[in-house]
Amino acid sequence: MQIINSSTFQLWELFYRANFINGLTGFKSVCLIGTVNQDGNPNLAIFSSIVHIGSNPALVGFINRPVEAAPHTLSNIQNTGSYTINHVHASFLEKAHQTSAKYPEGISEFDETDLTPVFQESIKAPFVKESSVKYALKLSEIIPIKLNNTFLVIGEVIHVMLTDDIILSDGFLTLDKSGSVSSNGIDGYYSTQLIGRFEYAKPNVKLEKLNNTD
Amino acid sequence: MQIINSSTFQLWELFYRANFINGLTGFKSVCLIGTVNQDGNPNLAIFSSIVHIGSNPALVGFINRPVEAAPHTLSNIQNTGSYTINHVHASFLEKAHQTSAKYPEGISEFDETDLTPVFQESIKAPFVKESSVKYALKLSEIIPIKLNNTFLVIGEVIHVMLTDDIILSDGFLTLDKSGSVSSNGIDGYYSTQLIGRFEYAKPNVKLEKLNNTD
Repeated sequence: MQIINSSTFQLWELFYRANFINGLTGFKSVCLIGTVNQDGNPNLAIFSSIVHIGSNPALVGFINRPVEAAPHTLSNIQNTGSYTINHVHASFLEKAHQTSAKYPEGISEFDETDLTPVFQESIKAPFVKESSVKYALKLSEIIPIKLNNTFLVIGEVIHVMLTDDIILSDGFLTLDKSGSVSSNGIDGYYSTQLIGRFEYAKPNVKLEKLNNTD
Repeated sequence: MQIINSSTFQLWELFYRANFINGLTGFKSVCLIGTVNQDGNPNLAIFSSIVHIGSNPALVGFINRPVEAAPHTLSNIQNTGSYTINHVHASFLEKAHQTSAKYPEGISEFDETDLTPVFQESIKAPFVKESSVKYALKLSEIIPIKLNNTFLVIGEVIHVMLTDDIILSDGFLTLDKSGSVSSNGIDGYYSTQLIGRFEYAKPNVKLEKLNNTD
């Protein structure tokens, strides 16, 4: 095994360090966050820092980088209180990754990448038509992380749209069937294959696999 | 497409809702967090809420559930300032899932699941010997999330141990080669297969794949 101490991180080139440290957290969710600014201009940006906060109420968080590095999504959410999270699939992966380019304010990544915005009544933020698992959130709280000037943005899930055939009888979503992509590091994307589901673990009870998988 | 509004979530049975809402965030990292209590007794628990906070300094966060639901990891980190994060592989997936059982304080999940604790000089928390990507953190901050009584626990990466052959020349970690597992929902685990890496995106420049993948 190779051992690396944190004093070494400082000696590394910026992208080497970013690749390495981003890999340590393991495979990640990757989604497109859709917003509009005060003038109604849409914005779309890729995020791999989405995290489950709780199921009841249904709260989802993501980490927004410092304002100077990633201003549009955060300010749009602050101004409108509305955003959508849209799963990424292999069929439009290049377009999704391309949204990470630094477009000026007012330029829509939907236009630039040829992804299709769709709107639902009473929800300001646009969904991505091409995505088969997507949901709208209402901003709950923005928590500043002073350690590195990032933000934990937490929203409540208010409206979910997904393809019919991926919900199992116990509420489990077969995201391998929907083809939702997983990410690693700053630029790697992966398809997935189910190893198994396991029952609720209890002390001193032999663990069994669940059969409810498709 | 099926449309589900949040008013429906309240009508669902507890596990149905947990499965569904946990699936919305997409594929997740899944890791074992190792700690010791004040008496030096080891604790090991599985988490799928690990999130990258920043690369410089190298900060990693995770969401800890309310204290009454998951007290041991959080109190051990508060008391010692030390913890490890260990990737899960298919070879010990059942053992990793079994750590989610509610063992009493003072019972070591290492003993109960037959995973092997290993210690490194000057680091209080135990690593999981069987894991091929693992690192120790020093607690930086615990941020309470008042919305649902959870906590964002942030630590700085101070010591990394990993198999030699998974670091590429640009710092990227080939986690498919190390066999790190991805998770979905509350009990689903997946292997992964690389679709591709993409270069740093720029406006109006055609996106190309990166060749540096193994």
